[in-house]
Amino acid sequence: MAKLIECIPNFSEGRDEKVIEGLVNTAKSVNGVTLLDYSSDASHNRSVFTLVGDEEGIQEVAFQLVKYASQNIDMTKHHGEHPRMGATDVVPFVPIKDVTTEECVEISKKVAKRINDELNIPIFLYEESASTPTRTNLAKVRKGQFEGMAEKLLEEEWAPDFGERKPHPTAGVTAVGARMPLVAFNVNLDTDNIAIANKIAKIVRGSGGGFKYCKGIGVMLEDRNIAQVSMNMVNYEGTPLYRAFETIRFEAKRYGVNIIGSEVIGLTPAKALIDCAEYYLQIEEFDYKKQVLENHLLN
Amino acid sequence: MAKLIECIPNFSEGRDEKVIEGLVNTAKSVNGVTLLDYSSDASHNRSVFTLVGDEEGIQEVAFQLVKYASQNIDMTKHHGEHPRMGATDVVPFVPIKDVTTEECVEISKKVAKRINDELNIPIFLYEESASTPTRTNLAKVRKGQFEGMAEKLLEEEWAPDFGERKPHPTAGVTAVGARMPLVAFNVNLDTDNIAIANKIAKIVRGSGGGFKYCKGIGVMLEDRNIAQVSMNMVNYEGTPLYRAFETIRFEAKRYGVNIIGSEVIGLTPAKALIDCAEYYLQIEEFDYKKQVLENHLLN
Repeated sequence: MAKLIECIPNFSEGRDEKVIEGLVNTAKSVNGVTLLDYSSDASHNRSVFTLVGDEEGIQEVAFQLVKYASQNIDMTKHHGEHPRMGATDVVPFVPIKDVTTEECVEISKKVAKRINDELNIPIFLYEESASTPTRTNLAKVRKGQFEGMAEKLLEEEWAPDFGERKPHPTAGVTAVGARMPLVAFNVNLDTDNIAIANKIAKIVRGSGGGFKYCKGIGVMLEDRNIAQVSMNMVNYEGTPLYRAFETIRFEAKRYGVNIIGSEVIGLTPAKALIDCAEYYLQIEEFDYKKQVLENHLLN
Repeated sequence: MAKLIECIPNFSEGRDEKVIEGLVNTAKSVNGVTLLDYSSDASHNRSVFTLVGDEEGIQEVAFQLVKYASQNIDMTKHHGEHPRMGATDVVPFVPIKDVTTEECVEISKKVAKRINDELNIPIFLYEESASTPTRTNLAKVRKGQFEGMAEKLLEEEWAPDFGERKPHPTAGVTAVGARMPLVAFNVNLDTDNIAIANKIAKIVRGSGGGFKYCKGIGVMLEDRNIAQVSMNMVNYEGTPLYRAFETIRFEAKRYGVNIIGSEVIGLTPAKALIDCAEYYLQIEEFDYKKQVLENHLLN
């Protein structure tokens, strides 16, 4: 069984169709890799690619994309709403099948080293690959953005993990790391009071004393006039979706508020949902790997 | 995207290792097909193979296996606890990916015709492929077993769908058809009273006025001293697992009995469980095909 690894590089270009096309062509040019999806946002001026491949292919395609971006995106001219620090802003590697997070950490370090060796772009390792606890958090790593990186790299605690204390003149700095698959999971409440959604989000998220692998904020769905607890489940094994869901349910009751639905945005690994079915159906000793038919069909 | 079809042929040999090995070798000899699993039961004197493949490969492997069985299994000498009527007893085709049940019906008919044309084995089409409502039920088709087939085929309503009214002298008769994937799903109760499990099984199963695509009986788990509602969910889209589960829960309450767990036996399609997660998490507008990561990885 081949190892399958996902890579979701973010590029600081969401407007120039020629450059985006160049990235797509690069993504498709590497053997052993499938481009699952890509999307560009003009106001963010940013594109997100979703690739999956074997151990060798995913490393090669990540490097080739970073190389193409470094040659075709000039950060000195970049404007957009989304925070960013490099032509390739961030390169996460995610374990999908028959591969551990530790192996993805190794992969991320190999790719980080090659990017620096051949393209001279300084690298911060982040998330599971981070060299210090501060660097696990991408927001902290990226703080200061492209324009502030020259100064930041000179600060005592911000020497890059690979490369010199000087950003690439046009490609800036790139964060590379391994992380668990992320599931975007939103729970809708039968209230138009966003304060309630905010209070519940604070309870459920790790930073508020809640579940370690859950990030969350209150959001107003203007078109439906309801409040929502909008979450990123950053490790669905550490914090299963059902646990956040049931906690929101019983916390909402304090306000006489009920859950009226939920949303999963974009892609989710099957296991994130099957783990929930196991909980609710009280299935004893379920062996995900062996008992789910599709797991025998993935090459 | 290639169509993926599962085939689960049952052979009337569970003891002779040479013959079983021959079936395994035949199963592995066809391109575009993967042998997922096989198991033999000596007291049943029967082997069940689970194969998956593309449209062409699955037809070829089914035929080659039936051919091998017809040359190596002699039904006139067969004894075993499980009802059976042929060297290859039954050949179901199951839609797995990018293929409809209707297409599997067509596949089953093509294979049935070829088996009869080339091997001279009479065929009953069953389940979704059945030519009459009586023939949807394998137990009714098989009634009389190998020893009674010569007589049965002469009865007015039991002319085979392919072939003459005369069983193959050593290979008997084979049932071929298309069906939905079956999920074996058992629900455990906190009672040692099997009568309660039997009453609930009768309520939940289609034949008792319950859910159309659910078969069920009460079973005693002697080692745990608890009663169980043991079910075959023969179409998890028509009757989702959670619906049977919740019905058992509220019916059991009448007796002061609770669900203490459940079991999924053997393989299940991911969707049978993800549909349950969708229900319990109240997920709005989930697109299984697009949103489950693994669906993009199957070839």
